[in-house]
Amino acid sequence: MAALKACNILITGANRGLGLEMVKQLAEMPCSNRQIFACSREPDSPKSEALRELTKKHPNIIKTICLDVTNPVSIKEAAKKVGALTGKTGLNLLVNNAGLAKLGSTQNTTAEDMLAVFNTNVMGPFSVTQEFLPYLQTAAKASGTPGLSCNKAAVINISSSLGSMTCFHEIYNIIQAFPYCVSKASLNMMTVLSAHDCKSDGILFAALHPGWVKTDMGGDQALIEAKESVAGMLHVMSTLTEKQTGVYLDYTGKTIPW
Amino acid sequence: MAALKACNILITGANRGLGLEMVKQLAEMPCSNRQIFACSREPDSPKSEALRELTKKHPNIIKTICLDVTNPVSIKEAAKKVGALTGKTGLNLLVNNAGLAKLGSTQNTTAEDMLAVFNTNVMGPFSVTQEFLPYLQTAAKASGTPGLSCNKAAVINISSSLGSMTCFHEIYNIIQAFPYCVSKASLNMMTVLSAHDCKSDGILFAALHPGWVKTDMGGDQALIEAKESVAGMLHVMSTLTEKQTGVYLDYTGKTIPW
Repeated sequence: MAALKACNILITGANRGLGLEMVKQLAEMPCSNRQIFACSREPDSPKSEALRELTKKHPNIIKTICLDVTNPVSIKEAAKKVGALTGKTGLNLLVNNAGLAKLGSTQNTTAEDMLAVFNTNVMGPFSVTQEFLPYLQTAAKASGTPGLSCNKAAVINISSSLGSMTCFHEIYNIIQAFPYCVSKASLNMMTVLSAHDCKSDGILFAALHPGWVKTDMGGDQALIEAKESVAGMLHVMSTLTEKQTGVYLDYTGKTIPW
Repeated sequence: MAALKACNILITGANRGLGLEMVKQLAEMPCSNRQIFACSREPDSPKSEALRELTKKHPNIIKTICLDVTNPVSIKEAAKKVGALTGKTGLNLLVNNAGLAKLGSTQNTTAEDMLAVFNTNVMGPFSVTQEFLPYLQTAAKASGTPGLSCNKAAVINISSSLGSMTCFHEIYNIIQAFPYCVSKASLNMMTVLSAHDCKSDGILFAALHPGWVKTDMGGDQALIEAKESVAGMLHVMSTLTEKQTGVYLDYTGKTIPW
């Protein structure tokens, strides 16, 4: 089984759920010189207690960073810090994981929920990716290797099968989440457009469906544990090449139809 | 060739381009008791001169309505007027045509352009559809016929092949329009979700790609005239049944992959 060898990794929404589990598994992997930038809105609040505990165990690997993906000033400040800490190595892997889910149908979704979900799930990854793009370009150039990979320079967008026009109903029939579905379809489109636009920069893009995971967001009816989902996604990331930039895969590596 | 027989029809962005041409062709079609609600942001401005001229030719058929799809108050006011004019017949066909295009790539699209395009192309159809849903439900009930059709009760979302994860590059390679692509993927997802949510209400939903049309938005490099595009789309609308709710078709009736 190939292991992810990316050196400098940034994860948004890292204080709980999938983000926290991803930081944990990446920190425990044997990999020299790894720096994990574990980003959350309020790194000092009680909501980030578990991340602070994890950071204490791996003080040389995990750096907690304050980052609110809906706040352009916060994104710029986080980018400055990460830029200083990564230097000529650049940023190898950006995981746009922070997300917001709101329930609703065509009939009863509010405009407020549509906008809130759009701001976090679409504008968040859009702005974070654009701000960190120079560091990803630096990593691509610094690698000195051809092709694309998550070890070299990549953006992984945590999407959902709820963003698939073809498969949404599998979960939507149980959990109506109109704003969430719309936002993840947008995120998928951004993934393919950015894969197209940034191929010549040496940066890989992919959208991953983590499965229906037992987290605060996924709820009790969910099917798998965060541990299994994250182990699967990290393995999938380690296998991606230039042939797969712009793909939409689930945590087992299976292609999801758009 | 089947003709569209919908009685009460509302079209947003009706003062120019595809919207204006659609009002024209629908007004010229032989169809008794037809009312066309031709909506535009500024029905009295010089930008709406052509629509006013057209309305003078068909004063019993065309009613111009002031409607800014980005303004919730404007949508509510337009809905009140249309509700009074349609009564127990309801609204048979809503065409979400108003749209905004902004150019840009992953690297240089601004957050302002992303938000502006989202507001017009996603929140617009979302809010307009939700506000007019009661009148569409009225039309579905009043029809007394089984199944779904554009003659009974339907929402047609004017999308684009630029919203297809599979086909976007055909036009995107010539015109980079990152915000527009993202917005149309969202609109497509809203179309399939609403088709799912509103099937039991008797309302059909479909997303149509008008082709690359020589309008202000399409520009000089475009391939077809508005007349051909609209004639094609109106024919496609006339053929849609309950089997096709949630489809994504071009103006010739060809299915576009998501």
